Amino acid sequence: MFFNTRNVNLGDHQKIIDVMPNWWGGRDLTSGLSKIYFIHFQNSSFVTLNDGNIIGFLIGFMSQSIKNQAYIQLAGVDPNFRKQGVAKMLYNEFYEICKKSSISTVTSCTSPVNELSIKFHQSMGFEILKGDCIENGYEITSNYLGEGNHKVLFKKDI
Amino acid sequence: MFFNTRNVNLGDHQKIIDVMPNWWGGRDLTSGLSKIYFIHFQNSSFVTLNDGNIIGFLIGFMSQSIKNQAYIQLAGVDPNFRKQGVAKMLYNEFYEICKKSSISTVTSCTSPVNELSIKFHQSMGFEILKGDCIENGYEITSNYLGEGNHKVLFKKDI
Repeated sequence: MFFNTRNVNLGDHQKIIDVMPNWWGGRDLTSGLSKIYFIHFQNSSFVTLNDGNIIGFLIGFMSQSIKNQAYIQLAGVDPNFRKQGVAKMLYNEFYEICKKSSISTVTSCTSPVNELSIKFHQSMGFEILKGDCIENGYEITSNYLGEGNHKVLFKKDI
Repeated sequence: MFFNTRNVNLGDHQKIIDVMPNWWGGRDLTSGLSKIYFIHFQNSSFVTLNDGNIIGFLIGFMSQSIKNQAYIQLAGVDPNFRKQGVAKMLYNEFYEICKKSSISTVTSCTSPVNELSIKFHQSMGFEILKGDCIENGYEITSNYLGEGNHKVLFKKDI
């Protein structure tokens, strides 16, 4: 099968919003996917296409205030196309653009309940940062994205 | 009265979330204020303090993919401290940091119903960009921030 990865464009936003609940098994994470990313962070955000359809995406940017660090806001792969290297391709594209801007560390975070995402990050070589308590067996950082919004924090040197 | 403007820090996020509904006359715009901005865009985001309390804020960043352009995500002033130059001070801080990065254009957008915000932007020297239809007497760009999320677009050369 031939997959093609390219930078996002404005039109990709709604297409991704439409498939997200299905890709996340019913959970609605669309509020985390502001169109702002598709306007102002196109050069570090990617989609993978198969036959013209989006089967994967990675939305990320380079931190403006933390030196040499980039952040992945959200990434996902169509359940029908998992275990075929799509995520790896997307992450590698992101690492490449980051390296060109002297980024040495990529960070991300996920909810403590999202075991699939935690395992995925570990398989991609991300380490879990020490938090301030343990939940679901993982180090978590309380209130990282707001009051009550605890997260598992990931970091990978590229 | 003495006002002090400084870059945002992590702790400012919740304080701003808490006052926002009151500052916006009951409208809840807190979903537009991700803590991500307070983590990764500290150097282009500011708060104004009076007696240790936040009385104004401006959250913005430099576009990563649109050359020489910056974007203001959200700005607000405590209703008790309006018409005292707080917004002007915040915008000027933002312009200064932008100019240091060779930014020549600042953009922003607002809902067509938010007359106060539209008038404010005009008073600050922002022009309204030509849209694809007229609503409430203003040029608006349909679906700018997502399906059904129409916006009045602003631009100012600095």
